[in-house]
Amino acid sequence: MFEVPPIGRVESPLTDPASAPKQGDEGAPEAWLIFEAHVAAGLRDIEPGAELLLITWLDRADRDVLTVHPRGDHTRPPTGVFSTRSPDRPNPLGLHRITVRSVEGLRLRVADLEAVNGTPIIDVKPVLPTQAER
Amino acid sequence: MFEVPPIGRVESPLTDPASAPKQGDEGAPEAWLIFEAHVAAGLRDIEPGAELLLITWLDRADRDVLTVHPRGDHTRPPTGVFSTRSPDRPNPLGLHRITVRSVEGLRLRVADLEAVNGTPIIDVKPVLPTQAER
Repeated sequence: MFEVPPIGRVESPLTDPASAPKQGDEGAPEAWLIFEAHVAAGLRDIEPGAELLLITWLDRADRDVLTVHPRGDHTRPPTGVFSTRSPDRPNPLGLHRITVRSVEGLRLRVADLEAVNGTPIIDVKPVLPTQAER
Repeated sequence: MFEVPPIGRVESPLTDPASAPKQGDEGAPEAWLIFEAHVAAGLRDIEPGAELLLITWLDRADRDVLTVHPRGDHTRPPTGVFSTRSPDRPNPLGLHRITVRSVEGLRLRVADLEAVNGTPIIDVKPVLPTQAER
């Protein structure tokens, strides 16, 4: 069992998971990522235009669910959660590809994030460059 | 603080993080993912050929590190960990793109995984299809 403290939170106009876009490229508004002061040094090389993978903890998810109807569509057959992006799953990590619009200290303004307001942030990684650019 | 139990483990010929490839497409051997019996229903739609994102817990990482020399190269300037794929970071999640070669119940044989033997598995997600295919 690992202990995972949030390193920040999402600040977004989206508040209702049911009406939020299912993926960030399906019409998500701009949002802010607000980080804890103690991780500031880890953020210092993030610049506007950066393409990042944001990992969140989907704290409203049901961790006992192992099969779902994909995208909540009951005409689709029940599917194992590890073949879907359902938030309901044993360890409800959200994985979001985002673009940084601006940086203001511990606050990053980002595009294409479908996570709702208050969602805890667990980690941030760069989208991998090509092998030659690593 | 969230509590995250592993849902499985990596079984790999790689045992030494220092000599393992830094990314799965840099010469990683085949490996097995061995899942806990209680998540079996979540795996049932994973088939050979599936492209997955595996999320692991890098249990040998140093969680107090906020800046690193990218790829351990000391000629490169110290960089904030959230702009790198360093395993050392506050919440040491590993993100690995893998291809399933075969499925044997709770065991998946996979290609392109650089995680070392025994690495705990936290979550598995499909690589997102194009919007039209969702």
